[in-house]
Amino acid sequence: MSLADLQTPVAYSSASVADVVNDLKEAFGERCSTSQAVREQHGHTTTWLKNQAPDAVVFAESTEEVAQVVKLCAAHKVPVIAFGVGTSLEGHVNAPSGGVTIDLSRMNAVLEVNAEDLDCRVQAGVTRKQLNSYLRDSGLFFPIDPGADATIGGMAATRASGTNAVRYGTMKDVVLGLTVVTASGEVITTGGRARKSSAGYDLTRLMIGSEGTLGVITEITLKLFGQPEAISGGICSFPSIKSACDAVIMTIQCGLPVARIELLDPLQVRACNIYSKLDLAEEPTLLLEFHGSEAGVREQAETFAGISEEFGGSEFRWATKAEDRTALWQARHDSYWASFTLRPGAKGVATDVCVPISRLAECVTETRADLDREKLLATIVGHVGDGNFHVLVLVDEENAEEVATAEAFVGRLNSRAIDFGGTCTGEHGVGQGKMKYLRKEHGAAVDVMQSIKSILDPDNILNPGKIMPTA
Amino acid sequence: MSLADLQTPVAYSSASVADVVNDLKEAFGERCSTSQAVREQHGHTTTWLKNQAPDAVVFAESTEEVAQVVKLCAAHKVPVIAFGVGTSLEGHVNAPSGGVTIDLSRMNAVLEVNAEDLDCRVQAGVTRKQLNSYLRDSGLFFPIDPGADATIGGMAATRASGTNAVRYGTMKDVVLGLTVVTASGEVITTGGRARKSSAGYDLTRLMIGSEGTLGVITEITLKLFGQPEAISGGICSFPSIKSACDAVIMTIQCGLPVARIELLDPLQVRACNIYSKLDLAEEPTLLLEFHGSEAGVREQAETFAGISEEFGGSEFRWATKAEDRTALWQARHDSYWASFTLRPGAKGVATDVCVPISRLAECVTETRADLDREKLLATIVGHVGDGNFHVLVLVDEENAEEVATAEAFVGRLNSRAIDFGGTCTGEHGVGQGKMKYLRKEHGAAVDVMQSIKSILDPDNILNPGKIMPTA
Repeated sequence: MSLADLQTPVAYSSASVADVVNDLKEAFGERCSTSQAVREQHGHTTTWLKNQAPDAVVFAESTEEVAQVVKLCAAHKVPVIAFGVGTSLEGHVNAPSGGVTIDLSRMNAVLEVNAEDLDCRVQAGVTRKQLNSYLRDSGLFFPIDPGADATIGGMAATRASGTNAVRYGTMKDVVLGLTVVTASGEVITTGGRARKSSAGYDLTRLMIGSEGTLGVITEITLKLFGQPEAISGGICSFPSIKSACDAVIMTIQCGLPVARIELLDPLQVRACNIYSKLDLAEEPTLLLEFHGSEAGVREQAETFAGISEEFGGSEFRWATKAEDRTALWQARHDSYWASFTLRPGAKGVATDVCVPISRLAECVTETRADLDREKLLATIVGHVGDGNFHVLVLVDEENAEEVATAEAFVGRLNSRAIDFGGTCTGEHGVGQGKMKYLRKEHGAAVDVMQSIKSILDPDNILNPGKIMPTA
Repeated sequence: MSLADLQTPVAYSSASVADVVNDLKEAFGERCSTSQAVREQHGHTTTWLKNQAPDAVVFAESTEEVAQVVKLCAAHKVPVIAFGVGTSLEGHVNAPSGGVTIDLSRMNAVLEVNAEDLDCRVQAGVTRKQLNSYLRDSGLFFPIDPGADATIGGMAATRASGTNAVRYGTMKDVVLGLTVVTASGEVITTGGRARKSSAGYDLTRLMIGSEGTLGVITEITLKLFGQPEAISGGICSFPSIKSACDAVIMTIQCGLPVARIELLDPLQVRACNIYSKLDLAEEPTLLLEFHGSEAGVREQAETFAGISEEFGGSEFRWATKAEDRTALWQARHDSYWASFTLRPGAKGVATDVCVPISRLAECVTETRADLDREKLLATIVGHVGDGNFHVLVLVDEENAEEVATAEAFVGRLNSRAIDFGGTCTGEHGVGQGKMKYLRKEHGAAVDVMQSIKSILDPDNILNPGKIMPTA
């Protein structure tokens, strides 16, 4: 694997690391681990980047403990990597320069729920499914759904979104405020519970998506939403990617408030059929979900059926029963794992481009042609209401030529998306894997990002080797 | 007026200013003005802060010209103040240390509209009404409506919102990307046209609300929305502020997607009756607007009528005809000016707190009691779906004691909102007037803001004396 080799790890003093680890063992006892298994588990990434384990892992239980670890690391200029549950896809939790990983998964308390205000405050290690279980009887829910049962802290750190973003936004839209430990170990809060504020620089949004490189997020105040009175959904296939995308564009233009609108390409449908034992037509397919009142949901569905017909869609197949809907969305969420049924033993190279939806059909079609030309096996799924789609390339990681072909493909895909006015990452983040595309996407703005990093983390101890090129 | 005196103007070299002005006159000819009338017009603020005119005003016509002016000012360490149309309320465009104001109002081109993608790109000087006139035949509209016909650049710079925010969000939610001239005169773009991105630090949101202290915004890429198929609205009075607020809380909790829900207190209704020749009951009043399909709007209105009844609201008075609705909302938008009919010749002290809506009734009620106790004449209006309300205190600016009483009241109001988990400014921004409340609201996070300011504008030339205390 070569991507991770691109970054030059900064040399931190190994004597300092040893000192810090000794101090941490003294302070945290068994909650500071240096076992190889634990360290490697925390360098784990879901994708193809190689595992780079930290020197030690501390299981923190409070903001104060996180501050204590960061202060110690700051004093010795030792790297600090924040870790939730390890579902990130771009090597965010790798430790290319070693250092201390702070595992936040034990900070999993829901601290307050304010039902009247539709907000709550949680510790960073609460997962989205845990939060929604907690909220079940309140009539409220937390809508952001990246598929994996990620922690809220990790989702904030990577500016995550997922299938519901077309209706409910991304993490940047649903976070009201954060508690953050800065590079010097200070604890700050970046926002209160007001629904909106113009009081100074938006540190909340600056921290969201900063992937632990500007601070460690320990608590999050979130907007919640009322559970919809009615939910309906279904599935519909189209003669071509273009006709499916055109139906999506029309749906968005009409202002139809779809809660989810997902594209699966024929190969992805085949994989889902095998993995989830379904019998879907292996054609370009849209999965939809509508939220609203009973009448509102019916109206939305009728409007969509009209649009679908206009673009040659098959008859809309309803999943009105909750269990059918769950099965369908479970299959969608499992699509990442399903893809591997097409090539058991392969490694998956995840991608995450997002383009203006008017360019979506063109971008997906060109991308599929590129894959075919290069004889790469890959599935495509997309949060197409936002113009965001994922190609998962299945590669034999022992075959250097194939790996190089896949990497070159990923480079072309990212460039294509950027050239179309889009981004190389809609929701996964930069991590290690996307650093080399940042300059093409942002130009001189990268220098502004770099200067912010340099002032907020002058010794580059916060998750070094991610997002920003090491100086 | 004492608020503006609180800041210590930084001493910039007057020889440098003279040099810069000479160079600007040479480069821009008549588009660089040093006439007293033009300078004072650009130091103008709508509220009570004293006018602090710049040394010169340049009317820029392109991003390149803005960069040229900033480069020149940077070379001589001379302040640069960005100016749209001067509707800000907290002294944002004052020049307490002199310097050069860049008037962006001639940069008023709509550069592109991408109807399929529901986005557009405009120059900073385009006003919101101008944009909506431009869009009229496209089926799209730009929803953010702060009342005044502000420029899009100014609205981005102050993180503006207004009556529609409860449904469509604030400027932070509708801006996709910005073109910004940095303190050194570099031109950067902070985002493309993708609906979402996780590619690095969110410079877009960092610049939004930075009030020209981190860069000069010259172009904005905006999300647009489909014009609703149907709009309806109306008005309803309540026996108390508390019952009106409770109706609002229930409306929001139900997930009713109201487009606007505005509170007017009895004194504000009286002022509107006089100014706009209406005959509304002088009681706590809610103004509402619903956007959606014909059936959807009807359903929303019926649901609200049920809620209103539950909390003792009067019969809902419909304004189904467009002209009635326009008259009603015009009266709401004119409420600021209407207030002065209650005390002709008075100065208005605008406030802008925002609290969690569960605390809204308590906050408004305590605030009214405070006003009564202090014998201050003031109206109250609120974007209550967001928990944001404005007290406009009418003061005789020649009466030092009354001014001091009003200032003390404003301090208590801001503290009260912050203590309730809210903010001292929901949408107006900090400017000069709110600087002293920032530390109470944000604590140590202000130091992080200050360090960002220091790295992005090391010579403090960008709108000095706003937001951040001068070092």
